[in-house]
Amino acid sequence: MEALVIHAPGDLRVETFPTAELGPGQLRVRVRCGGICGSDLHYYNHGGFGTIRIQEPMVLGHEVAGVIDAVGEGVVGFSVGERIAVSPSRPCGVCRYCQEGLQNHCLDMRYYGSAMRNPHVQGAFRQEIVVDTHQAHKLADRVSDGEGAMAEPLSVALHAVRRAGPLLGKKVLVTGCGPIGALIIIAARRAGAAHIVATDMSHHPLGKAQKVGADEIINVAEEPDGLKRFTADKGTFDVLFEASGNERALRGALDTLRPRGIILQVGLGGDMNLPMNVIVAKEFDLRGAFRFHEEFAMAVEFLNKGLVDVKPLISATLSYRDSARAFALAADRSQAMKVLLNFD
Amino acid sequence: MEALVIHAPGDLRVETFPTAELGPGQLRVRVRCGGICGSDLHYYNHGGFGTIRIQEPMVLGHEVAGVIDAVGEGVVGFSVGERIAVSPSRPCGVCRYCQEGLQNHCLDMRYYGSAMRNPHVQGAFRQEIVVDTHQAHKLADRVSDGEGAMAEPLSVALHAVRRAGPLLGKKVLVTGCGPIGALIIIAARRAGAAHIVATDMSHHPLGKAQKVGADEIINVAEEPDGLKRFTADKGTFDVLFEASGNERALRGALDTLRPRGIILQVGLGGDMNLPMNVIVAKEFDLRGAFRFHEEFAMAVEFLNKGLVDVKPLISATLSYRDSARAFALAADRSQAMKVLLNFD
Amino acid sequence: MEALVIHAPGDLRVETFPTAELGPGQLRVRVRCGGICGSDLHYYNHGGFGTIRIQEPMVLGHEVAGVIDAVGEGVVGFSVGERIAVSPSRPCGVCRYCQEGLQNHCLDMRYYGSAMRNPHVQGAFRQEIVVDTHQAHKLADRVSDGEGAMAEPLSVALHAVRRAGPLLGKKVLVTGCGPIGALIIIAARRAGAAHIVATDMSHHPLGKAQKVGADEIINVAEEPDGLKRFTADKGTFDVLFEASGNERALRGALDTLRPRGIILQVGLGGDMNLPMNVIVAKEFDLRGAFRFHEEFAMAVEFLNKGLVDVKPLISATLSYRDSARAFALAADRSQAMKVLLNFD
Amino acid sequence: MEALVIHAPGDLRVETFPTAELGPGQLRVRVRCGGICGSDLHYYNHGGFGTIRIQEPMVLGHEVAGVIDAVGEGVVGFSVGERIAVSPSRPCGVCRYCQEGLQNHCLDMRYYGSAMRNPHVQGAFRQEIVVDTHQAHKLADRVSDGEGAMAEPLSVALHAVRRAGPLLGKKVLVTGCGPIGALIIIAARRAGAAHIVATDMSHHPLGKAQKVGADEIINVAEEPDGLKRFTADKGTFDVLFEASGNERALRGALDTLRPRGIILQVGLGGDMNLPMNVIVAKEFDLRGAFRFHEEFAMAVEFLNKGLVDVKPLISATLSYRDSARAFALAADRSQAMKVLLNFD
Repeated sequence: MEALVIHAPGDLRVETFPTAELGPGQLRVRVRCGGICGSDLHYYNHGGFGTIRIQEPMVLGHEVAGVIDAVGEGVVGFSVGERIAVSPSRPCGVCRYCQEGLQNHCLDMRYYGSAMRNPHVQGAFRQEIVVDTHQAHKLADRVSDGEGAMAEPLSVALHAVRRAGPLLGKKVLVTGCGPIGALIIIAARRAGAAHIVATDMSHHPLGKAQKVGADEIINVAEEPDGLKRFTADKGTFDVLFEASGNERALRGALDTLRPRGIILQVGLGGDMNLPMNVIVAKEFDLRGAFRFHEEFAMAVEFLNKGLVDVKPLISATLSYRDSARAFALAADRSQAMKVLLNFD
Repeated sequence: MEALVIHAPGDLRVETFPTAELGPGQLRVRVRCGGICGSDLHYYNHGGFGTIRIQEPMVLGHEVAGVIDAVGEGVVGFSVGERIAVSPSRPCGVCRYCQEGLQNHCLDMRYYGSAMRNPHVQGAFRQEIVVDTHQAHKLADRVSDGEGAMAEPLSVALHAVRRAGPLLGKKVLVTGCGPIGALIIIAARRAGAAHIVATDMSHHPLGKAQKVGADEIINVAEEPDGLKRFTADKGTFDVLFEASGNERALRGALDTLRPRGIILQVGLGGDMNLPMNVIVAKEFDLRGAFRFHEEFAMAVEFLNKGLVDVKPLISATLSYRDSARAFALAADRSQAMKVLLNFD
Repeated sequence: MEALVIHAPGDLRVETFPTAELGPGQLRVRVRCGGICGSDLHYYNHGGFGTIRIQEPMVLGHEVAGVIDAVGEGVVGFSVGERIAVSPSRPCGVCRYCQEGLQNHCLDMRYYGSAMRNPHVQGAFRQEIVVDTHQAHKLADRVSDGEGAMAEPLSVALHAVRRAGPLLGKKVLVTGCGPIGALIIIAARRAGAAHIVATDMSHHPLGKAQKVGADEIINVAEEPDGLKRFTADKGTFDVLFEASGNERALRGALDTLRPRGIILQVGLGGDMNLPMNVIVAKEFDLRGAFRFHEEFAMAVEFLNKGLVDVKPLISATLSYRDSARAFALAADRSQAMKVLLNFD
Repeated sequence: MEALVIHAPGDLRVETFPTAELGPGQLRVRVRCGGICGSDLHYYNHGGFGTIRIQEPMVLGHEVAGVIDAVGEGVVGFSVGERIAVSPSRPCGVCRYCQEGLQNHCLDMRYYGSAMRNPHVQGAFRQEIVVDTHQAHKLADRVSDGEGAMAEPLSVALHAVRRAGPLLGKKVLVTGCGPIGALIIIAARRAGAAHIVATDMSHHPLGKAQKVGADEIINVAEEPDGLKRFTADKGTFDVLFEASGNERALRGALDTLRPRGIILQVGLGGDMNLPMNVIVAKEFDLRGAFRFHEEFAMAVEFLNKGLVDVKPLISATLSYRDSARAFALAADRSQAMKVLLNFD
């Protein structure tokens, strides 16, 4: 079986990789499709991010869908041939945080394709993978493999939206319209946001933002004062989703956010210099959102029922054997949102 | 009638000041006692803070208690001779935020002794003041004028504590033990915090912190790694009250705060450079807390019933005619917490 | 000008009624369309409900839309000829509850067409009405007068849904599919409910429930055990909207509601005998939902943007001169949901 | 080893009972003190409550404290001779609700001394018991065995108080001042309630209520209209803790509860006939509170630190060999609150 293994920045190889044994209560899955995530790009381009660095060869990938190939002993409710999306979230279930229902903060998380632990947790960009049944979520016929692979980033967006509290009737600003920002627009609309404004520095993602439901888009590279019209009466927006990881995006949005406004920081980008006196005086509520857990099932249910449409965000599907081209395309914000790898 | 009027940094004068006319539904109050607040010190020492600067002579002060001297037409429930604490919060009542119950964000707030608006709102460091009945809160016999003057900073602390959500059984860290930090310790204990750790750079405030209820105190000037023992399992504290306005205090506390921990930023101190990736990955919830509104009545009720004790925080009471000495003492963290002015 | 005046049960007359003077900041509105509400039916059929009874002739109606006929002194932002929906919610703005942002609990509410106060507050089933600008919400061209008249019951539904907290990804049960139950289905779907099951005793409302978005419908008259399949593992649903006012509906749903499930009681129907030990042991959270306030603007925004579709719920539009037929039809659950009156 | 075994109503026997084997990670505890709970009384007097009935002999008791007698393999942090309170809450840890942090709704709970499951879960009224370390909470020297035994009902009270949301500065009504009601008064005061009013039909519990912190007490048997003075402006209290299980207590309190008031139903007492229209119109929020989980550690911490004082509620301590007298006394509201059994 073949896998996509990262050895060093820019050194991503197709290698033979052993399939794990199929244990009781497990499923062997033939992976069909995998989405390239921002963290995959960081490993590929920079060997990691922040203090997290590749220390040993690691299979990349954590956004995959496939078909069940074999069913372990004692499994009920799953059959060979069923198509599933695979959740990469594998918390321990017993630690303090798992027992509080905060599985994304598990003290012993084994998330696919992450160099946070040593030895690293191998990822899912491979032809076959053995998963636990709780990771497997069946896809309806209407949902393509590619859409199924997008259940993972959609889960991230749903988690961020849930962290914001109820959005019904709210005015929402999204800064940064990459795949996560765009999926947040979709999730916020699904959650009942009344008005959604999206900003970015580039045309392509803004076009996509509009396509998936933003009521207004602003190119802040071309129109640096584009948000000024939202500053009256101490600010317009109830909630800001900051999905760019850019300090200027966050600072520039504060005047448009009403007192007690909620800021969801989703984008990762290192340290930021923030005007704390404004945060204090307007009593903002700045919350981090990180990964997800129960939202994966929710994402698949929304996809299965057609309650969200992620198809406009799929820019291209390339063979995993063509990974260099795929990763280059995924990194090009002027033409790509989500790039998928085909593992068939 | 005399008042304490600031003209420029360091230039604080006792001047004759006209008493306002007593209108219907109003009370004329003989001010007895006023507390010197950090913002009074900023006006006195620096002429303001951030972009807010004294543009014209302004009476300082917003923490006062006194005795009713005259009662306006149509007033019910108040009599001459009754002792009251005076709330300096005077929202318009009709703007968008007042109608949402967020009076501290009023679009037309007239807070005593504040240079935020022009002309400035004159303060309450004067011998007589006319107030609306909703500003007047009766003091029980057990409560001294000085304690009554502390209803205002206690309201700030109660507001910050309420912004943190329920504290019953929670582990709490307070960084910065000036008057507000110390009052937050009192309020957090009253709200049911199970364990309270306080940090500061100085001995005097830490001693006071312990006196008013901190379970542990740490002098981070002497013991820079004093918080290390709270970092196991991703962090110990449920809630951090940052009352120093110091970036290092906030950054140094993040490793001790558990995932989903709540940070209340109360101290004002300008921009801060923050590790946003940590805020994201641990899903912190960083909230500003600013002034108060309904908490003033709550503060007086707690004082009247003896449910809180602020007496240990009163360092000295000096005549308003001795304001230079009083302001110097109030600024000296090595020997003073709250310094009161006597207006009798 | 003519109005529909109730004198006694069954005695609803078209009478000449004086138009109020147009004051500053007000609008005179030519009413075009009004929806018959359950409370209008109660006045018409029974002279009131509970302890609330008609004591004097009263114009009925509180769900109306119309066109601006004249603009009072000092009004900005409204012009003659604009079409609006009229909010019947007229709180005092100054009482304790208004100042907390709970205008629907105003101590001095003057809600249209309500016999709760004496003298009664005259309603809006008339050809002309003078309103304050805060009551006027402009309709987009895409929204018909009839849909505009439905902004009011839609507000009730949105308020109930907001009272339930975030619904994104939740499993929802709605018992009772009259106009409010059906609008709750619409609002719950808009708020991101993942799965919605609706029950009723009649075919017609269940058909409408399905049309507006229920995933499953159950006729509990024909299939009394229809909810049994949702009882596994202590219950399936996260939230129950009880919109029938029927004790059996509420009791019958408790086994299908998971521990910590939220019950929104919206339907009015008098006393109910409830199994409190079940409510205690499963730690349910039973909340009342009553009228609305800020949701009116939200309802109109959703209609204007096409984010909700209430058209399937409009059963018929009759002339106000034909009120007997209109009220009979509105009371007939086997063929009507919302019946509108035309005042042109 | 001896235990107190219930065979039938009134038939409670001291019997020899085998001690379980001490497994790895477990502690053997010499029980010293056990509190008689309302459910113990129901088994003793009526053979059970509601549909729950004794089907086989069962050791009663779930409120116990003792001393560690032996330490199983691999146990760290506990030593022979240490005194502990024992939590009777033993959830499975893996079911849907445990994984959401709602252990009190565990699908496979094994709560001591409960006939909810068959075979019944044997209780803790015995001389020796083997427990898991997560059940063991060390007692400080200042805490007596009797107070340690009260950690369990205190946990119930803390759980109910936490279910009510923040109480800081709130006005609270407690109906029913048996042990749980009185402990709720203690917990509500600890959580910062500003004013606490307690009602009951008997003198003895009201006296205790006052002793542990109620600001006002009302004997509603003697003064049926005693709550009338709290009905102005739609009601005074923010939160009602209904700890009597009596329909009249709940109904009688509704007029004193402000709109959006929160009702915690804690007392068990069967069906209640409730005025749902009032619950709807005032938008009450009626919540059940059942048992506890993480609150046990909190209860012990509060006791250990002297942050609560439960001693006034201990009415008597009798030998377990004198159980008939002890159970009779525990059932006599005119002279007893909590009655303890001594197992030494």
